[in-house]
Amino acid sequence: MTEYVDYLIMHGHLFTMRGEGVGCVADGAVAIAGDCIVGVGPTDDLLERFTVGETIDASDQAVLPGLIDAHMHARWAVARGVAQDVTHWMQRALAPYARHMTPAAAMAGTRLNTLEAIKAGTTTFVEYAKPAPGWAAFFAQVGVRARLTPTINALPPGGMAGWRMGDLYPLDSSVAERDIEAAQALARDWHGAADGRITVMFGPQAPDMLSREHLLKIKRLADRDGLMIHMHVAQGDREIEQMLQRYGQRTPAYLEEIGYLDRQLLAVHLTEATDEEAALVARRGASMALCSGSIGVIDGIVPPARAFRDAGGRVALGSDQTSGNNCANLFNEMKLTALFNKIKYRDPTVMPAWEVLRMATIEGAWAIGLGEQIGSLEVGKQADLILVDLTAPNLSPVLNTPIRNVVPNLVYAASGHEVQTSMVAGRILMRDREVLVADERAIRAETQIEAEALARRVAADPVHGGMALLTAMEAGQL
Amino acid sequence: MTEYVDYLIMHGHLFTMRGEGVGCVADGAVAIAGDCIVGVGPTDDLLERFTVGETIDASDQAVLPGLIDAHMHARWAVARGVAQDVTHWMQRALAPYARHMTPAAAMAGTRLNTLEAIKAGTTTFVEYAKPAPGWAAFFAQVGVRARLTPTINALPPGGMAGWRMGDLYPLDSSVAERDIEAAQALARDWHGAADGRITVMFGPQAPDMLSREHLLKIKRLADRDGLMIHMHVAQGDREIEQMLQRYGQRTPAYLEEIGYLDRQLLAVHLTEATDEEAALVARRGASMALCSGSIGVIDGIVPPARAFRDAGGRVALGSDQTSGNNCANLFNEMKLTALFNKIKYRDPTVMPAWEVLRMATIEGAWAIGLGEQIGSLEVGKQADLILVDLTAPNLSPVLNTPIRNVVPNLVYAASGHEVQTSMVAGRILMRDREVLVADERAIRAETQIEAEALARRVAADPVHGGMALLTAMEAGQL
Repeated sequence: MTEYVDYLIMHGHLFTMRGEGVGCVADGAVAIAGDCIVGVGPTDDLLERFTVGETIDASDQAVLPGLIDAHMHARWAVARGVAQDVTHWMQRALAPYARHMTPAAAMAGTRLNTLEAIKAGTTTFVEYAKPAPGWAAFFAQVGVRARLTPTINALPPGGMAGWRMGDLYPLDSSVAERDIEAAQALARDWHGAADGRITVMFGPQAPDMLSREHLLKIKRLADRDGLMIHMHVAQGDREIEQMLQRYGQRTPAYLEEIGYLDRQLLAVHLTEATDEEAALVARRGASMALCSGSIGVIDGIVPPARAFRDAGGRVALGSDQTSGNNCANLFNEMKLTALFNKIKYRDPTVMPAWEVLRMATIEGAWAIGLGEQIGSLEVGKQADLILVDLTAPNLSPVLNTPIRNVVPNLVYAASGHEVQTSMVAGRILMRDREVLVADERAIRAETQIEAEALARRVAADPVHGGMALLTAMEAGQL
Repeated sequence: MTEYVDYLIMHGHLFTMRGEGVGCVADGAVAIAGDCIVGVGPTDDLLERFTVGETIDASDQAVLPGLIDAHMHARWAVARGVAQDVTHWMQRALAPYARHMTPAAAMAGTRLNTLEAIKAGTTTFVEYAKPAPGWAAFFAQVGVRARLTPTINALPPGGMAGWRMGDLYPLDSSVAERDIEAAQALARDWHGAADGRITVMFGPQAPDMLSREHLLKIKRLADRDGLMIHMHVAQGDREIEQMLQRYGQRTPAYLEEIGYLDRQLLAVHLTEATDEEAALVARRGASMALCSGSIGVIDGIVPPARAFRDAGGRVALGSDQTSGNNCANLFNEMKLTALFNKIKYRDPTVMPAWEVLRMATIEGAWAIGLGEQIGSLEVGKQADLILVDLTAPNLSPVLNTPIRNVVPNLVYAASGHEVQTSMVAGRILMRDREVLVADERAIRAETQIEAEALARRVAADPVHGGMALLTAMEAGQL
């Protein structure tokens, strides 16, 4: 009597990401029981070994681990595309929208962004926000894997609207205390929820947005509760300037001094870090979330991910936010990461396709602390995977010898819409491009309404008159 | 009695590209009679003015001029993804495939690439190849607009397989003469064919691949026949090295001396041109085809398009070829062009969305010599246009005020699969993503067969042992 499995995905071009490369298995199969992978190998072998509930034919499809988005602010999809092609993006484009964001707008954006990302193959969402009501419950209900990071800062209410460039931010201790409370509450309620699909990280927003004492408190709590810390680090000249004014130190040296650089840290961006600073963060065991698209759009900068990796650090990919990226799509991030780094070093061999595919899967999994659970197709891991249509004209033909062309085409030619089917913890989220776990039309309609209302509030606020893109509107360029 | 039109596309978000910006018309319509645009304006106005054969509802869709791909080698789709992440791409990756290309393989690749590009919104194809039988007839039959450029060079048969880096190429005069004959024959047969949809340019491959005498002969013939010259210029360090060895001059100075720099020239790549050299070419009136994706993959270089534009030159976008890009998709080229240039100049304001959209439409049209016919939605121009679904999650929501977000999202968030419908010269090529003018399944199947046969020929040729990617195959990275 053979073992029973719920699903056998068979006849696929498997890229398991086992070992040091991409772990290709021709005519491969994956057997899934409950939320777990229980078999990976040639289709013929697995057909013999298992009694199958449902077979899924993956002929002419690539089967990959589900993609991991290591840094998202999903709510911003409600203001997609209102902030790019400008300097000082935060202050001169996004701030008026931030000021008028409501919980309802935030949740509409979160749902839309999640829908978009599911359709592009994302299965793990490392999400960062001041929680709106229903935030965690949404990720639990929709079925994706989520690392939720409640933002902690000490910025006074009203945000950056009244702040002038060059001034030190005022830090409001009571805001930090309230945020820390909220983060602890969220961790109590949700860390390990939904059979472990939902977990929590602490999110001190950035070293310039919290006092040293609050950073140290968060670190103690995170140590105590075994939670990771997910923080923006050296994310812009604005931050570095604040750090120098307040502490006389650049961010990495400061974090080293206060004991923040260790395996518990997921450091986001490192936009303004030098190669030496990136290497320091990596050597201390921290991981890096690299947001190539958003930092490209917002800053025109390629962060020092290569130096970080050369120093032995793990790099994950993140889509950041869609008002200045403007999409939540890891195929986009893989391609841009490979190409931006070739350009940065004027060397076409830098960051080849297989490396960035690993960043979006197994390297990303280790970087966010889930390397034991996800990121590769291996027995005992969670059944998080995607099927990608290789008959799409832009991914055809498929060649296996003398050069196999699938991985380069997934990175340089795919756009994400070739993802047909996705599964998280053994549950199918999308099948043949139909999202089964959300009402696509309702989400779009709701977001449109919330987005228009948000835009009206912005337009009615005199602060909007300072937005850089109004000039482009007047010139007929938008 | 109102005027009869064949089609009225109505209720769309029109971006006409008239004037200096994007020419937005809210709730706009386009009226089409025969192959021509006869009305553009608010839907209500046009409904009053015309009696309509068929209405096409473009609610929640952007209506744009069809996209112009200014430089393609379409056949290479048959070897998509076999050549990237390596240095000396041509010699160390592509040459064995070039050596074993057959006319049947070339035509299979051409059909697949054309299909891919149609599905991503391309309507004008500036195609460059040594013609295979049926080459021009295919473009005429499939219904796209094409500027066909038969390649002219003096490279001995066998290509670059026996050539060692550093040596001067041998130039074979008889090859050049034969190619010139073939180009003239193609121009006689096809220039202006299919009601003007098919036109011909002369394609001296590169200044290092033809003698000065043959270049001058081509120039005389082009002048006589009123044809443009479409040539790779400063396309790599290999070319510059050859030019210095042979003539003691870098390419732009040489072309200036022999009288090649004028309005008749479409200069492709300019990869190795300095800003000053690019500005010289622009000031002389030549145009530039910028292939951001392929040059990024192949060389890790951002060509000097900004300097070219600053000197007053027109820049068009091209997808080049898919063995080293690896897609034929102008949405990809727009995004990469905007982002690569931001990175090159470390400035997020460089090449904003509207500028690259103009490169793919009206600027591109002028650059390839068709500015009077296509590139904008204007009365009297050819009816080449596309409809793009703005309800796709990655393009939602749609905002019109205070900041209109559609153009930035088309550039930074769209992938091309949101194109629903396309029309060339008043004929619908694709409707609701169904390509009406080609058998998609047959093309894919044919290309797969031809691609496998080509790969087998490469594998059987000992020259393939020098391919750089064999190392990656052995390491399990492909």
